[in-house]
Amino acid sequence: MSVHNFNSGPSILPLPVLEQSAKAIHDFNGTGLSILEIGHRTSHFQMVLDSAISSVKRLMHLDDQFEVLFLHGGATTQFMQVPMNLLDQDQTAAYCDNGIWGNKAYKEAAMFGNPVLASSSADKSHTYIPKHLNIPANAKYLHITTNNTVEGTQWHEYPNVEIPLIGDMSSDIFSREADFKKFSLIYAGAQKNMGAAGVNMLVVKKDILGKIQRKIPTIMNYQKHIEAGSLMNTPPVFAVYVSMLTLQWIEQEGGLAEMGRRSQERADLLYNTIDSLPIFQAKVATEDRSQMNAVFFIEDESLQNLFLDQCKEAEFVGVKGYRTVGGIRVSMYNALPLSSVKAMADLMQDFAKKHG
Amino acid sequence: MSVHNFNSGPSILPLPVLEQSAKAIHDFNGTGLSILEIGHRTSHFQMVLDSAISSVKRLMHLDDQFEVLFLHGGATTQFMQVPMNLLDQDQTAAYCDNGIWGNKAYKEAAMFGNPVLASSSADKSHTYIPKHLNIPANAKYLHITTNNTVEGTQWHEYPNVEIPLIGDMSSDIFSREADFKKFSLIYAGAQKNMGAAGVNMLVVKKDILGKIQRKIPTIMNYQKHIEAGSLMNTPPVFAVYVSMLTLQWIEQEGGLAEMGRRSQERADLLYNTIDSLPIFQAKVATEDRSQMNAVFFIEDESLQNLFLDQCKEAEFVGVKGYRTVGGIRVSMYNALPLSSVKAMADLMQDFAKKHG
Repeated sequence: MSVHNFNSGPSILPLPVLEQSAKAIHDFNGTGLSILEIGHRTSHFQMVLDSAISSVKRLMHLDDQFEVLFLHGGATTQFMQVPMNLLDQDQTAAYCDNGIWGNKAYKEAAMFGNPVLASSSADKSHTYIPKHLNIPANAKYLHITTNNTVEGTQWHEYPNVEIPLIGDMSSDIFSREADFKKFSLIYAGAQKNMGAAGVNMLVVKKDILGKIQRKIPTIMNYQKHIEAGSLMNTPPVFAVYVSMLTLQWIEQEGGLAEMGRRSQERADLLYNTIDSLPIFQAKVATEDRSQMNAVFFIEDESLQNLFLDQCKEAEFVGVKGYRTVGGIRVSMYNALPLSSVKAMADLMQDFAKKHG
Repeated sequence: MSVHNFNSGPSILPLPVLEQSAKAIHDFNGTGLSILEIGHRTSHFQMVLDSAISSVKRLMHLDDQFEVLFLHGGATTQFMQVPMNLLDQDQTAAYCDNGIWGNKAYKEAAMFGNPVLASSSADKSHTYIPKHLNIPANAKYLHITTNNTVEGTQWHEYPNVEIPLIGDMSSDIFSREADFKKFSLIYAGAQKNMGAAGVNMLVVKKDILGKIQRKIPTIMNYQKHIEAGSLMNTPPVFAVYVSMLTLQWIEQEGGLAEMGRRSQERADLLYNTIDSLPIFQAKVATEDRSQMNAVFFIEDESLQNLFLDQCKEAEFVGVKGYRTVGGIRVSMYNALPLSSVKAMADLMQDFAKKHG
C-alpha cells in the first residue's frame, strides 16, 4: 500500500477488519446472505452485538453497574442526548470548553438546562487543557472531551470529581489503558479508533439514569435502549459489525496496553521530529499534546503550503489542518502503522534540510 | 444462490450492489483507501452524496422546492424528528393509525403537540386502510405510513388533503411510480428497498419549515441539515454509499416503472397462489394488499408451524410473521427475483396438495 492515511476521521482501519468486512458483504458466516441482508433480530446479529459489548466490557474492565449501547448517530447526537437524559430545564451542569467539539456540546446543553463552563482554554486558542476547574456545587455532571481532534490536545489524567464525569472519547477511545470507571458516561462515534462512521458507542453507569422529570423521546431515551438491548429499532447493522471486528482486533493485538504502547511510540517519533526541526512549531502545551492528533505549523505560509503539496505528492492523506486552526495535522489512530509515521518523519527531515 | 431472502428488513439487496460495496471496502474508486477510511469532507464522498441525491430527485421527479437529505437513524428517529420540526406544543396534527409503526409515530408526536387520529383500523386488527379521514381544520399536517410492513397493507392511492401530507415510506419507497409531489415530507429508513441499515432518506418541501416557535436541537433540525448539505456531522458514509449504488441500480434497471412492473408481477403470483389454495388465508382487505409484504395464515397452527419448518428446510429466510401478528409473511422488495416467489409458490402448492 503506497497511501499513508493520516485522516482525522473517518480514518484508517486495520487491514484484517477491512478484509473480513468485505468477505461478510459477500457471505456472512456461511449464511448465504450478505451482512447487509440479515435481520437484526436473528441469532446471527445478536452474536455480533453480544461480542462487541463483551469486548468493550473486557477492554474497559467494566462491572455490571455499567451498560454498553450501540446507537445510531455520532457524537453530535450525544451533545443533545446527554443533557436530554440527565438534566432538567432548571438544573446546572459543568462543561470544559477545551476545543470546538466541547464547545458545541456546551452550547447544545443550553437547550435542556443551565450549563456553565468549568474551564475554557479559549484565551490561548485552545492550545492547552486547564487543570483547575470551577464546578458549581449544584452541577449535575461534568462533561469533558478527552481528546480534542481539531486542536491536538488530550487529557492525560482525568479530573477527580464528586459528581458524575462524562467523557466524549470519540477520538481517543481504546487508544490506551485508563481508569474508565472514573466516568459515569462515555460516548464515542466509532469512526476513528473503533470502526466505521454511522454508529455511536455508549457506556453508561445505570445509577445516573431516571433522575429527571423531562419526558424523553423514545428513541433518545437511554433507559429504553438498555431495556431493548440496543435493539429498540433496526440498528446500523454493518457499522456495529465493523466495530465488533475492530474490537476483536484490538484484543488480539494485545489490548489497550499494546494500543497505548503503539500510540506512545508513534507520538514520540512525530513530536521528537517536530521538536528537533525548528522549521516546525507545535503550539500545544507540551504536557497536553495529543497522542492521536499532532497539530503543528510552518510559520512561513508559502512554505507550509509547499509542505502540504509534498505530502499530497507522497500520497499522505488527510494532513491539512482543520479549517478553523490551519497548519498541519497528523492523525495517528490505532490502525496507523509506525511505518507511516516514519515516512512522515522522513519527509519532514528532508523538507527541513532544504528549507529549514 | 440457494437461499431465498424474504426478510422484512434489513432485506435482500441487488447482487451488483453487494459486489460493488465489497470492492469499495478494499479500494474505493482507485483511491488506495477503503470506503470506510475516506474523509466525509472530500470530493470523493461529495460525489457519492451528490449522486445519491440526484438519483432520488430524478426517480421522484422532484423540483427545486424539495430538498433531499441523508441522515443518521431510521424511521423511528423520524417519529420524533417530524413533530419536533413541524409542530408546536399547542398545535394539532392528524395521524393515521393503520398499523404498529403509524401508531408509534402518533404516540411519539404526543410529546411535541396534540396529535389526533384521522383514522384507525385497530377495529379489524389493522387488516385494511380506512379511506375516510377525520382531519381537524387546524391540523398542521397529516401523517400516513404508506406501507404497513407488519400487517401487510398498503396505500394504493394517496389521500388528497389541503394540509401538508407526510409519508413514512420506509417499506415501499422506490417500489413503483407515484405522485410523490403530493407529499410535503417523505422519510424512509434505507434497509428495505434502497440500501443498508443505518441511514434515513428524507425528502422535504422547504416551505413547511421554519414555522414553529420551539428551539430545535441542532442535530435534529431539518433546516440546519439542509444548510449543511447533509454534512453537519460525520454522516454514515458507507450506508449512504450503498444507497447510492442501489439507487443507480434502480435507474439502470428501468426506474420506478420497471420496479412497479416487477412488484406487481411478484405480488400477483403470490396472492394468486394464496387465493387458489384454501389452506392459506390472507386476512387483509383485497384492495389494500401490500405489494411488499404478503401476510397470510394457515388456520391449523400445527400445520402452520410445519409449513414454516419446511420454509426453513428449503432455505427460505425471514418467512415467520411479526410477533404481534403471527402467521406467515413473505416480503418481496425490489431486489427479490421473481424466481424466489416462484419457489415459494411451488412450496405452497406442494404443501396444499399434501395437507390441503
